[in-house]
Amino acid sequence: MIQLTRRATFSASHYYWNEAWSAAENEHVFGKCANKNGHGHNYTIEVTVKGEPDAVTGFVVDLKALKDVIEEHVLSVYDHRHLNLEVPEFAKVVPTTENIAIAIWNRIEAGLLAHPTMKTAQLAAVRVFETSDIFAEYRGGKL
Amino acid sequence: MIQLTRRATFSASHYYWNEAWSAAENEHVFGKCANKNGHGHNYTIEVTVKGEPDAVTGFVVDLKALKDVIEEHVLSVYDHRHLNLEVPEFAKVVPTTENIAIAIWNRIEAGLLAHPTMKTAQLAAVRVFETSDIFAEYRGGKL
Amino acid sequence: MIQLTRRATFSASHYYWNEAWSAAENEHVFGKCANKNGHGHNYTIEVTVKGEPDAVTGFVVDLKALKDVIEEHVLSVYDHRHLNLEVPEFAKVVPTTENIAIAIWNRIEAGLLAHPTMKTAQLAAVRVFETSDIFAEYRGGKL
Amino acid sequence: MIQLTRRATFSASHYYWNEAWSAAENEHVFGKCANKNGHGHNYTIEVTVKGEPDAVTGFVVDLKALKDVIEEHVLSVYDHRHLNLEVPEFAKVVPTTENIAIAIWNRIEAGLLAHPTMKTAQLAAVRVFETSDIFAEYRGGKL
Amino acid sequence: MIQLTRRATFSASHYYWNEAWSAAENEHVFGKCANKNGHGHNYTIEVTVKGEPDAVTGFVVDLKALKDVIEEHVLSVYDHRHLNLEVPEFAKVVPTTENIAIAIWNRIEAGLLAHPTMKTAQLAAVRVFETSDIFAEYRGGKL
Amino acid sequence: MIQLTRRATFSASHYYWNEAWSAAENEHVFGKCANKNGHGHNYTIEVTVKGEPDAVTGFVVDLKALKDVIEEHVLSVYDHRHLNLEVPEFAKVVPTTENIAIAIWNRIEAGLLAHPTMKTAQLAAVRVFETSDIFAEYRGGKL
Repeated sequence: MIQLTRRATFSASHYYWNEAWSAAENEHVFGKCANKNGHGHNYTIEVTVKGEPDAVTGFVVDLKALKDVIEEHVLSVYDHRHLNLEVPEFAKVVPTTENIAIAIWNRIEAGLLAHPTMKTAQLAAVRVFETSDIFAEYRGGKL
Repeated sequence: MIQLTRRATFSASHYYWNEAWSAAENEHVFGKCANKNGHGHNYTIEVTVKGEPDAVTGFVVDLKALKDVIEEHVLSVYDHRHLNLEVPEFAKVVPTTENIAIAIWNRIEAGLLAHPTMKTAQLAAVRVFETSDIFAEYRGGKL
Repeated sequence: MIQLTRRATFSASHYYWNEAWSAAENEHVFGKCANKNGHGHNYTIEVTVKGEPDAVTGFVVDLKALKDVIEEHVLSVYDHRHLNLEVPEFAKVVPTTENIAIAIWNRIEAGLLAHPTMKTAQLAAVRVFETSDIFAEYRGGKL
Repeated sequence: MIQLTRRATFSASHYYWNEAWSAAENEHVFGKCANKNGHGHNYTIEVTVKGEPDAVTGFVVDLKALKDVIEEHVLSVYDHRHLNLEVPEFAKVVPTTENIAIAIWNRIEAGLLAHPTMKTAQLAAVRVFETSDIFAEYRGGKL
Repeated sequence: MIQLTRRATFSASHYYWNEAWSAAENEHVFGKCANKNGHGHNYTIEVTVKGEPDAVTGFVVDLKALKDVIEEHVLSVYDHRHLNLEVPEFAKVVPTTENIAIAIWNRIEAGLLAHPTMKTAQLAAVRVFETSDIFAEYRGGKL
Repeated sequence: MIQLTRRATFSASHYYWNEAWSAAENEHVFGKCANKNGHGHNYTIEVTVKGEPDAVTGFVVDLKALKDVIEEHVLSVYDHRHLNLEVPEFAKVVPTTENIAIAIWNRIEAGLLAHPTMKTAQLAAVRVFETSDIFAEYRGGKL
C-alpha cells in the first residue's frame, strides 16, 4: 500500500457566527472572525488516496481523474465563493477549518463514487490549510 | 544605501465591481471576482525602507517601530475585514492588487511621518501578494 | 476524530557537547555542532491536537487558547534564548531536534492541563523543524 | 519512539511509456508524460527513520550518516540522470511518483544495512514530491 | 507606475552540450549537466509588466489575458518538453537559466504584441528559477 | 545584461550589544536581541551577479565557481559560528541583517577578485534573510 497526494488551492470568504447567540457572545467566542462582512483566505487542500500501484501503469489512481474530481466537486463550488452564503453545507454549520476538511472529505468521497473510473479509489486523508500556520486533517473519523 | 524589508500578512475579503456597469459587463471584465458575496485571500505584504545603517546600532530603521507602523496603519484596518465594505479607500476604488499596493504605500508613508522616531525613514517599495502567484510592487510611482 | 495543527516559530542558539567526553570525541560525534560558542536556528514547530469538532462552534479546540499555551509554555521560554544555557531541560540533555520535540510535547501537555479551558484537549503530535531539511516528530512515544 | 526526517533534492528526467501499447494508447493513458524525449522535475524526497533518542547523544540516528546513505544510494544514482534510461529499476517499471518512492525505500533500506553504523536504523517512511502539488508516501507497504 | 507579476511553472528536460567540443571538454565546462540523456527541472517563471492602473478597473493589465499569453507562448511550447530537442531557440543555443530567461522575454514580448487587448502592455522583467536556489532575471537588456 | 542569483544558507548565533551602553540602554534599543547568551537563525543569502551570457556556454558566470566563492568566503566562516565572537568584522560592528549583507558583499567581492576565473564577474546584489519575514538587500551602496 502507498499513499498519493494532490494539492489544490481556492480563495473564499467566510465568517464565524452562531445565530442563537448575541453579538457579544459571538465576538467573545469567535473574536475577529465574527465580522459578518466576512474575511477570506487562500485555502490549500491536500487530498490523499491510498492503494497498490498498478503493475502496468505504476499509478495508484489516475492523477488527472483525481484532479477532475477535486475541481468538479470542490473547487467549482468553493473557489471565489462566500462559504457561509453560497455553499449549502455551511448554511447552518460554521465553516471552521475542521468543518471544511470534513465537508471536502464528503464531497471527494461522493465524487470518486460518481466518477466512471475512480469508483474503487480509497480516500485516505484530506488536509486543509486556512493559512500556512493553521491546518486540519481528517481521515474519515479515524486517526 | 541599503534596503531593509519586513513581511506581514492579513486575511481579507473583496470583490471587483463597477456600479456604473451592468452585471454582464462586470462579469465580462472581472470574471469570477465579480461575485458580490465576496471572496478572500491571505495577503502577504513586503514593506521596504532604505537608508544608511546607523554607525552605532547597525539599523537602517528600528524594525520594531516599522512593525508597529505596519500593524497600526495597515493590519489593524485591513485584517479580517471586507476591503470594499470596511476600508474607506476602497469605497469607490476597486481593491485590485495594484490599488492595494498603492493604498498601503500611502498608509505606511503617513504612518512613518506620524511616528515619533520614524519621521526620516525613507519608504522604498511596497509589494503585495494576493496569492503566491500574483503580486504587485509599487515604488511611489518610480520604477 | 480530526486533527488540528498550529504552527509557530522561535529563534534560538544551541550546541552539542557531552562534558564526559574529550573535545576530540565531541567533535567526532557532533561535528560542527560541537562549537561551544553556539550556533543557531529559526525553529518551526507544529503542535497537533485531536478531537471531535464541537457541534456548535465547529472547533476541536479554541485556536486562540492553543496559541496562548504555545506562547506561554514554549515561545516565552525558548525564543531568543540559548537552549543549553537558559532552558532548564537542556542543562544536562543535548538539545537535538529529537529532544526538543519531546521537551515541547511535555511543556504543551502540562500547559494544556494548566489552562482553564483546555484541560480536555488531546495532544496528538509535536513536530520540530531545525531547518527546512531536518525535522523530528513526537507523538507521545507512540508511532 | 520518535521520528526523524531528512529532506533532499535531485533533478532528473523521465517519461511514461508502455512498450506493449500503441502510441495512441500511451498518450491516452499517460497524456503529455508520454513524450519519449522526456521531461523533468526537481524531486524533493523526505526520508524518515524512527527509534528512541540515544540517552547520551540525543540522536535517533546519526544525521550525517543518514545523509551519506541518501547521497550514496539515491542521489548519486538519480541526480542529473534520465530515470528510464539510466536507473536500472526503471528499465521496465514506469517511474511514476509512486514507483520512485518504493524504489527509494528499497535503496535506503539496503543502504542502511550496508552502512557500518546504521544497521539497526529503522526506516519509517519515504515521501517523494514530483512537484510541490503531487507527492507519494511509502511506509514499506504499511499505512 | 506600478509593476504586476504573474508566476507560472513548467517541467522540462535539458542538457548542456557544445557540439564543437570533445566529450571531455563538455564535461569539464558543464559538469553533470553534460549528460546527453538529459535531466530535468520544475521551472518557475515570473513575468512582470508595468504601467498605470486603469482608473476604472484598477488593472495595469488584464491578468487573465496575461495568463493566456504565458500559456500560449511559453507553457504550451516548453511544458513536458525536452528543451534542446523540441524548442527551436535551443537547437543551437545552450538552454541555461540565463538563455531561457531571454527566450521567454522574447516570446512574451511577441505574444503581447499579437494579443488583441495586450498590445500596449509593457514587459518589465522575466525571472526564471531552475531550482529554488538558482534564478536569472532579464529586463530586456537593461538593469 | 542579465542577472543571475545563487541562494545559500547558514546557521549562526548572534546578539546585539553596545559595550558603551548600560544593560538597560541595550535592552531598550535592542529588545530581546540584547541577550548576551546569544540566539540564532537559519540565514538565507542570495548572491546576484550581472553580465552578458557567454555566446558559447550561455553562462553569465560559472555557477559552480560562484558556489565555491560563496562557500570559501562566506559559509566556511559564518556557518555554525557565533558571529559576534568568531567572525572578525563583527568584533566591533553589531551583526544586524543590514551589516551582515554589507559584510557578505565585501567578502564576495574580494573572493571573486581572488578566484582564478571569476575576476571579471560583476557583483550586483547581496540579499540576507534573517527570518522569512526580515531581509536586507545591499547593492554596493547604490539603489
